[in-house]
Amino acid sequence: MATAESVQAELTQQTEIFNKLRLDNAEPAVLEDTRKRLAELKKSLAALKNASGGKDGGKKKERLLLKTPKGTRDYGPGEMFCREHIERIVKECFVLYGGAQLDTPVFERKDILAGKYGEDAKLIFDLEDQGGEQLALRYDHTVPLARYLAMGGATNTQSKLWQVGKVYRRDNPVMSKGRMREFTQADFDIAGQWDTMIPDAEVISLLCTVLTRLEVGDFTVKINHRKVLDGLFEVCGVPAENIRPISSAVDKLDKLPWAEVRKEMTDEKGLDPTVADKIGEYVKRKGGRSLLEQLLADPVLTANASAKQGLQEMAILFSFLESYKIVDKVSFDLSLARGLDYYTGLIYEAVTEASAPPGFNSADATAAPTSAPPPPPPSKKKSKQPASADEEEEIDESQVGVGSIAAGGRYDNLVAMFTSAAAGETKKNQALPCIGVSIGMDRIFAILWPKWVDRGMRSKEIVAYVLSAGDGLLKERMELVQELREAGIATDFLAKNKPKFNAQFAAGERDEVPFAIIVGGDELKAGLVTVKEQRWEFVDGKKAKVASADKGVQIKRTELAEWIKATTAFTTWKSGKLIQ
Amino acid sequence: MATAESVQAELTQQTEIFNKLRLDNAEPAVLEDTRKRLAELKKSLAALKNASGGKDGGKKKERLLLKTPKGTRDYGPGEMFCREHIERIVKECFVLYGGAQLDTPVFERKDILAGKYGEDAKLIFDLEDQGGEQLALRYDHTVPLARYLAMGGATNTQSKLWQVGKVYRRDNPVMSKGRMREFTQADFDIAGQWDTMIPDAEVISLLCTVLTRLEVGDFTVKINHRKVLDGLFEVCGVPAENIRPISSAVDKLDKLPWAEVRKEMTDEKGLDPTVADKIGEYVKRKGGRSLLEQLLADPVLTANASAKQGLQEMAILFSFLESYKIVDKVSFDLSLARGLDYYTGLIYEAVTEASAPPGFNSADATAAPTSAPPPPPPSKKKSKQPASADEEEEIDESQVGVGSIAAGGRYDNLVAMFTSAAAGETKKNQALPCIGVSIGMDRIFAILWPKWVDRGMRSKEIVAYVLSAGDGLLKERMELVQELREAGIATDFLAKNKPKFNAQFAAGERDEVPFAIIVGGDELKAGLVTVKEQRWEFVDGKKAKVASADKGVQIKRTELAEWIKATTAFTTWKSGKLIQ
Repeated sequence: MATAESVQAELTQQTEIFNKLRLDNAEPAVLEDTRKRLAELKKSLAALKNASGGKDGGKKKERLLLKTPKGTRDYGPGEMFCREHIERIVKECFVLYGGAQLDTPVFERKDILAGKYGEDAKLIFDLEDQGGEQLALRYDHTVPLARYLAMGGATNTQSKLWQVGKVYRRDNPVMSKGRMREFTQADFDIAGQWDTMIPDAEVISLLCTVLTRLEVGDFTVKINHRKVLDGLFEVCGVPAENIRPISSAVDKLDKLPWAEVRKEMTDEKGLDPTVADKIGEYVKRKGGRSLLEQLLADPVLTANASAKQGLQEMAILFSFLESYKIVDKVSFDLSLARGLDYYTGLIYEAVTEASAPPGFNSADATAAPTSAPPPPPPSKKKSKQPASADEEEEIDESQVGVGSIAAGGRYDNLVAMFTSAAAGETKKNQALPCIGVSIGMDRIFAILWPKWVDRGMRSKEIVAYVLSAGDGLLKERMELVQELREAGIATDFLAKNKPKFNAQFAAGERDEVPFAIIVGGDELKAGLVTVKEQRWEFVDGKKAKVASADKGVQIKRTELAEWIKATTAFTTWKSGKLIQ
Repeated sequence: MATAESVQAELTQQTEIFNKLRLDNAEPAVLEDTRKRLAELKKSLAALKNASGGKDGGKKKERLLLKTPKGTRDYGPGEMFCREHIERIVKECFVLYGGAQLDTPVFERKDILAGKYGEDAKLIFDLEDQGGEQLALRYDHTVPLARYLAMGGATNTQSKLWQVGKVYRRDNPVMSKGRMREFTQADFDIAGQWDTMIPDAEVISLLCTVLTRLEVGDFTVKINHRKVLDGLFEVCGVPAENIRPISSAVDKLDKLPWAEVRKEMTDEKGLDPTVADKIGEYVKRKGGRSLLEQLLADPVLTANASAKQGLQEMAILFSFLESYKIVDKVSFDLSLARGLDYYTGLIYEAVTEASAPPGFNSADATAAPTSAPPPPPPSKKKSKQPASADEEEEIDESQVGVGSIAAGGRYDNLVAMFTSAAAGETKKNQALPCIGVSIGMDRIFAILWPKWVDRGMRSKEIVAYVLSAGDGLLKERMELVQELREAGIATDFLAKNKPKFNAQFAAGERDEVPFAIIVGGDELKAGLVTVKEQRWEFVDGKKAKVASADKGVQIKRTELAEWIKATTAFTTWKSGKLIQ
């Protein structure tokens, strides 16, 4: 009979197998089977432990597990201050580029999401059928946008729409790298019939502007074109029905060496080895305009209509990127394929050095191909004992990168899929071409937050703190606080009847409030208050208040608000950027 | 055998019964049974129609229903511009009052939400169990906040936390009044041990500041105290176990005449009629400080310890409200009870004339009790034929008010519920007292949006539109657009190679862009561009461009950005408030 110990041993072994398979990018079906077996083992173990009343049984079972759901987390005040800063910059850029905001529900009717995500559909969160509609949480913003456009929305704008909000995927989370089950995406899309590659250049330019203003560090926007890729596979001799699977193998070239990708093509997907080698000659190539010119000069490739059209469009795009002065940010990368089925033209993905896994060489992203192999597969972390079916599966977070921080592409047929499905006709309705980009806000947060902490950024915006030097003076404090707030100055005070002076000071200091406003009985009668300006500095990685013998200045109470608003501290006060 | 016609007839009848029960605030169990029967009938009807291949069968079944889920909607550009304006004001006020932001996941583990909402728990949206945790969408922000505090969050702030986000209730929606299944709440809460009624006064003051700045019109904050209410029921002779049900009957006094509430107490809830009449003498009373003084002078009431404590706290609160200068906004209303179980002290609810149902008399909210009965129950709208199980149930939207636009109260035991449940102990952990307010953003939007439309507010923020007078000049337009954007000026252009001049002008006008920037070949060579300022005015309820013979001014291209930024149009540009 199975004991807790024997099940535990099998579980440890099975966990290792599962992690190895995942690292090796095993076939989804194999992975799914292993995952199921793992879940069964965990259940058995939990049942055995409960039945035996072991140390984790009995009592613990009655206790409430105080946590957020797997793959989700709370963001507290300091983190939200940083996240708001990120969101503000992204929204400002969306407005700069002429975007108008859209908001769609967090859940959609299940049939709206069906058939849009390929094999990733299994990652969709479904709602329980409680009588009524079959609903599911949105997986991205693109499909809801296409549904909105198909319903005839947004005809009175320049067809630039943006949306910032949470989306949901039942994937394996890597929390520290911003890979979550609940995560925020900021999308900007341009819909409509416009001239070739102009909206495409606008979106790439927007992406570069956003990433530059966010100060994520050096970044590269990898670009490719589905028509070039399809044509390339055709001329190499890939059978039509095998193009999508081969494309998805190629997409792994940023994580696996060529030899392994080639093996997947030939052994798993049955591709002729000579065909695979021809593909290899192309997809290892990346670079700027020079690569485009090499490909345009390739008679084999340009003999293919699809490849030719794609390359001509890429040439137009490059000329626009010059006008936008962002050619140096872009890398034409033939190995970029993107998973989603709905892309039809230009595709792109932004990566930064900071977003790469350990061992990643940033030069690889733009340089000519190198024969040096990628780093060896990461070693596993020392195995912990999984305790319940809910426990996180093991991923060695130190070996995982943040990954791409933004991605997108052209999807010319998605809206028409909706309009024809709704019309119940088999022939396609007139297409509404679209192109868009999704910015991964949690991945950007994962990159920026450590810097934010290192720089000792503030986490609150209170400008003035009102203290009493005398005997409580609660009423007087309340009145002054209220006056300052009415004047637009964020103000607080200690919610005590008769607080000690030092307790009030300490409370104000904890939030690094620049102005301590001290009210005293006699002074108040004379219509005066004392203002003490406080500064903080960042020394040896620690925040410290600048020592000062300054006793503060006396200000007329009636002039206090205007006085504060005229200070440098107040006027330079923006997004917590004032740190000393 | 049932035919589509016979089932349809029964369905029509059942719908009428259901609507009547709901209008009469029938017992939840009765309502639930009727609802179930209704759902069954709808299913039968749909099945019969499909089987018979009737006019709605066959073909229609294959079509995709292109809509958002019941009780949810999209918000397009114009609406989002207004909603962002509302959200910005609310967030600014939260910051003014010293709040720090929190963000929690949209879903929680089911056991976190369990046992917190009383009979409303049936309105919770559950997620499907897809292997792993049992999850549900959050019902409000209060319970997730309490879970966060119980986990030890936010110890480094002044314990003022705010959160703006969507919450979910499977209720019957009244979309036009902002009663949705997915809706946005903005919460502000103060946690911690502070002196009596100071945080309470802060929250009421914040609420008044928010509603004043939002310009929702005249509003009243109805306040009451759970301890006063409990004491009052005790002295009237309500048995302890019946206090909560009687309290929930009293809470209906804003919708039903006293006679009906009394009937619910005596007939349904078995209360002694003389006890009911004693309650009636109290709960019909509302007013300001004078009511408080009357109650404090009532020897019967003040003999009860709970009532006495509550009244003393209310007296302290009123003195603080004077310091905050908001006594005139507040009405002490003994009929306010609030549904949720977790309140332990002060409770409140904000109403406006605009939020009331038709026939509501605003004087009632603050005036002395009147014996005039409320308006008769609304008549039903002419019955439509429900066509499928998904169809909206019938509510006559013209007879429904927006309801309270904000509400909240003190909940001193909720955090301790979590900490003790997690510790597995039966005795309570030390309490973390809390008080907070939830602002109903969709209800406020429902009030403000029609005014926004009436005033012809803009819906986009583009400041400059670049046009070519010459032969396309695409490269030149792109470069100028990019320069202006880099200078922080939201700019757009028509994404065509060689657009007609008038098409470009029309596109800019559609977004009411104040500056048309015209580039021409010869001018550009001389380093010049032409700027034409455009204005719109609102005449007879319609937006019209102000006619002008002005040909525009020539500006040096290198000085263009600074020139625009110095204009009045640019500097007064805020939140779409510039309408002419």
